Amino acid sequence: MEIDYQSCIDEIYSEVKPLLGLGQVAGYIPVLAKVNPNQLGIAVQTLDGQSFQAGDALTPFSIQSISKVFVFSMIFHAFGDKLWNRMGREPSGNSFNSLVQLENESGIPRNPFINAGALVSTDCLLSISKNPLEEILNFVRSLAGNQNINFDNAVAASERDTGYRNAALANFMKSFGNIKNEISEVLHTYFHQCALAMSCVDLARAFSFLANGGVNPFNNEQILTLSQAKRVNALMQTCGLYNESGEFAFCAGLPGKSGVGGGIVAVLPKHLSICVWSPELNKHGNSLIGMKALELFTTKTGISIF
Amino acid sequence: MEIDYQSCIDEIYSEVKPLLGLGQVAGYIPVLAKVNPNQLGIAVQTLDGQSFQAGDALTPFSIQSISKVFVFSMIFHAFGDKLWNRMGREPSGNSFNSLVQLENESGIPRNPFINAGALVSTDCLLSISKNPLEEILNFVRSLAGNQNINFDNAVAASERDTGYRNAALANFMKSFGNIKNEISEVLHTYFHQCALAMSCVDLARAFSFLANGGVNPFNNEQILTLSQAKRVNALMQTCGLYNESGEFAFCAGLPGKSGVGGGIVAVLPKHLSICVWSPELNKHGNSLIGMKALELFTTKTGISIF
Amino acid sequence: MEIDYQSCIDEIYSEVKPLLGLGQVAGYIPVLAKVNPNQLGIAVQTLDGQSFQAGDALTPFSIQSISKVFVFSMIFHAFGDKLWNRMGREPSGNSFNSLVQLENESGIPRNPFINAGALVSTDCLLSISKNPLEEILNFVRSLAGNQNINFDNAVAASERDTGYRNAALANFMKSFGNIKNEISEVLHTYFHQCALAMSCVDLARAFSFLANGGVNPFNNEQILTLSQAKRVNALMQTCGLYNESGEFAFCAGLPGKSGVGGGIVAVLPKHLSICVWSPELNKHGNSLIGMKALELFTTKTGISIF
Amino acid sequence: MEIDYQSCIDEIYSEVKPLLGLGQVAGYIPVLAKVNPNQLGIAVQTLDGQSFQAGDALTPFSIQSISKVFVFSMIFHAFGDKLWNRMGREPSGNSFNSLVQLENESGIPRNPFINAGALVSTDCLLSISKNPLEEILNFVRSLAGNQNINFDNAVAASERDTGYRNAALANFMKSFGNIKNEISEVLHTYFHQCALAMSCVDLARAFSFLANGGVNPFNNEQILTLSQAKRVNALMQTCGLYNESGEFAFCAGLPGKSGVGGGIVAVLPKHLSICVWSPELNKHGNSLIGMKALELFTTKTGISIF
Repeated sequence: MEIDYQSCIDEIYSEVKPLLGLGQVAGYIPVLAKVNPNQLGIAVQTLDGQSFQAGDALTPFSIQSISKVFVFSMIFHAFGDKLWNRMGREPSGNSFNSLVQLENESGIPRNPFINAGALVSTDCLLSISKNPLEEILNFVRSLAGNQNINFDNAVAASERDTGYRNAALANFMKSFGNIKNEISEVLHTYFHQCALAMSCVDLARAFSFLANGGVNPFNNEQILTLSQAKRVNALMQTCGLYNESGEFAFCAGLPGKSGVGGGIVAVLPKHLSICVWSPELNKHGNSLIGMKALELFTTKTGISIF
Repeated sequence: MEIDYQSCIDEIYSEVKPLLGLGQVAGYIPVLAKVNPNQLGIAVQTLDGQSFQAGDALTPFSIQSISKVFVFSMIFHAFGDKLWNRMGREPSGNSFNSLVQLENESGIPRNPFINAGALVSTDCLLSISKNPLEEILNFVRSLAGNQNINFDNAVAASERDTGYRNAALANFMKSFGNIKNEISEVLHTYFHQCALAMSCVDLARAFSFLANGGVNPFNNEQILTLSQAKRVNALMQTCGLYNESGEFAFCAGLPGKSGVGGGIVAVLPKHLSICVWSPELNKHGNSLIGMKALELFTTKTGISIF
Repeated sequence: MEIDYQSCIDEIYSEVKPLLGLGQVAGYIPVLAKVNPNQLGIAVQTLDGQSFQAGDALTPFSIQSISKVFVFSMIFHAFGDKLWNRMGREPSGNSFNSLVQLENESGIPRNPFINAGALVSTDCLLSISKNPLEEILNFVRSLAGNQNINFDNAVAASERDTGYRNAALANFMKSFGNIKNEISEVLHTYFHQCALAMSCVDLARAFSFLANGGVNPFNNEQILTLSQAKRVNALMQTCGLYNESGEFAFCAGLPGKSGVGGGIVAVLPKHLSICVWSPELNKHGNSLIGMKALELFTTKTGISIF
Repeated sequence: MEIDYQSCIDEIYSEVKPLLGLGQVAGYIPVLAKVNPNQLGIAVQTLDGQSFQAGDALTPFSIQSISKVFVFSMIFHAFGDKLWNRMGREPSGNSFNSLVQLENESGIPRNPFINAGALVSTDCLLSISKNPLEEILNFVRSLAGNQNINFDNAVAASERDTGYRNAALANFMKSFGNIKNEISEVLHTYFHQCALAMSCVDLARAFSFLANGGVNPFNNEQILTLSQAKRVNALMQTCGLYNESGEFAFCAGLPGKSGVGGGIVAVLPKHLSICVWSPELNKHGNSLIGMKALELFTTKTGISIF
């Protein structure tokens, strides 16, 4: 695979830039709604150590749901397969069904990448950690090789003030016994992890361990076993982009995870990770330009897991 | 990748054989319920032309839902992306929701590999084919390189006599205008395609084009474009095993398709296709031994798309 | 209760007439869609033998779902409480849930006045009747004291040609074993009973037995026991107007049954029955003017069961 | 109507007493679970001022959901029909659907007598009252003519400690803007109103205004207009007994409201109100003996609204 990634992402950058203005910045968190929509970054990190960037690839943004992969990896490492007593690994169909599903399946979320599942992940972390926020920060800083990564407290506070739906989910699962810690603490941690501010370059680096069989290629730390890393990729493939997981598999053909901050990270196992960011979302809550850019990336390079 | 596939599948065969008796043969079609449960076959077909077998790999069995991939490929070739006006490409969450989903989304099935989607595929085929059953037969015979493949008419008749749920789906979609042909003809064709009798060896061969970028490796016929073949693989990955699609991605890490006859076919793009068959099903309607054998296959060989 | 019913309904007639044009004639059956929307009739039948009319009270119209009460009464008489093995008696919440509910509750419709329940009623009638259509006709002719009542065959044929949703329901319930007869025969009978053509005067008379403790007041025939008649009224109260049953109880305060032909019949136990007809429907499928007229009737007369 | 109510309820008492032991005391609130299951009381209050009792008719018990009628009456009086912007008046089908329904209908509960609707009622009360708990207490004390009625604080505390599902509902509705006050205050008030301790005699008296066209017959205070009182009765008829509202209408034929403390109150408009209490519940959460006793009451007396 001899690909000129720099030319490739430059080309993609030019092709998708005209789409700015077609989506809509996430409105449900007031602070997020104020972000400048006119931004677009792309970063590629290969396992042989090269990194490529285009546009606003160094601008930190709110990673939101992308944080679910980090916290899930932390607890998957700690708990292993015992986790599956508390969450499933099937796609959830659509958001509309999430509460029915929780009711039907007695408070067990369908997978770790829907909000309910991520709340359980955070609850698991709280059960084993004295200072979960510090641990999360250390974890992502180490993965990204960037000690400046931090929580955006204004975003976290904004999430808390408007996070009634997540509070509903947490209370609902607690009624089934599937949240063990205090709801206020679970939500506090959850709202902060969502408010992590990272750049495309940070995220592409931080996801390298999933392309690399569970090992951080920059310091050889084993984050997950090979088998676990593959399984996180499989989970991202089937459940990583909300109700567009199928669409993303269909169009981009790579495991990935999106957030309503406008970021999407994807992984080509054994080769590279890539992050695209642009704040405007499509109607499914995924970055409109991110989806298109990643589809172009696999089309142009011919790479895909399929 | 220097793997001794023959030893590998022999080993798997020995390991999973003791699981015979733990599942349950599909009971909803009387003729299928009478199949001898004590059967187990494995076949691997590599793109470089080697084939490997273990157990009852040459015994024809009822392919049931595996036929959805064949008919979908036929109409994807014919209609291209126009198809997506009539079906989606997202996982369906669970069977429980299928009818709600159809109602909510005005008769558009969520993907081509649930029954509703497959009925639409068959309806599409009827719209362009004078003799759809003959065309289906020619298509699979050519892919498998076996002129003896045929419909099992006893199974087809049994399906028809008990196929009220499929008739309900077809009528429901017709009420939304998403079935164009006569319901009786759609069901007649559908019940026959499900009743195709093929062996593990047949199916491993017949799926080779999906491992091979859309080209039948035995006669170089282009069945689908490269892009289309990848996309069928992506669809199988996210939607191929009913409500266990996530589980199968998680455990086996390969795109695949199962049927209630007890067969599961999976594809490793660029390398091989594999079929396992054993009639006893788990509670999700997938071959209990098939699931386990494919998990062992990717564990032992270290191959997976992730 | 000394009420001048004639003045009362004349007054109501004048008050609601200006609402003509605000609703929409049922469009899903082509023949029904062609009905002149500009019609409005009211008829009251008291148990002491007086009858009052206003407007088009003698014009026959398609009674549609009102027929569910007749067929249910026939089989309730024949089967008694054994019926409740095959249908429930709870409101269905909303149409949206009907199929989920059927799936969840193994093909047992929630009550006899949703379509699924009415199909089971018709199936029950077929199990005990050699000539169900003739029996239905005799039943309503006798109740209404009008030998000229008949099926509108054009409507019945139109229903059959577009009745895919009812065919879906029947097939779905048959897959659970809750339809015993041939689906085509059940649908044939069902589409005809819906196509009965009766006038407001006919219907007000024909429902008198429900106001009169189960006894036809015109010939003293016991149609249902006192207890059964009360229970049919209770069922109409909670389930008679689709998703507006609660609204109708709230506004009109009488047990009643509506049809998409634009008729609504209501009963004041021990006193009278009333039918209003006007073809234009509100968004819930009930006669827009019929709802309003019945609310005015109970407001003006001060009668209501509450 | 010359009925010897005392003999009647004595007879019913003897007939239903043997059913003690067949149901199950509500287990979800620890304090409630400790109630002596072996209790049974009946009280009838006629509008002409007579009252009749049998068994433990003077023992206070936790009225739970029966309180929904009191708080709803308070706010219906205050807000009138403006309320219907924030809640509906249709039966909810079943509990299973309540969250889906809320999601589908943007946080508007289907009726005031499901938990979600009652939380909105309480929220409305908070918006107009400085001391809602005191007002609720004054309201029920005045209706029942008993100054000793009070909250059972142990029950209220127990509700709070286990009320995660109600907290989920409140948060969920707040995410749609349909809860205006602080969630903690809404829940505090709600848990207390549910923990009101009243006897059968208290409740039969307190519901008299609903039998009496909205006027408290003991002091002639107008609680609701005639039209509003009828409408509360209609709401109880269609929605008062959770998923057994239809069953209760079918069997007892009276508007009523139940609570998981084991009480059921019913009203015969223009005549009387009746309360039965026995703590053991059937599988739908209604008093097993209460349901049976009220069915017997209408059968024996021949009274019913139908």
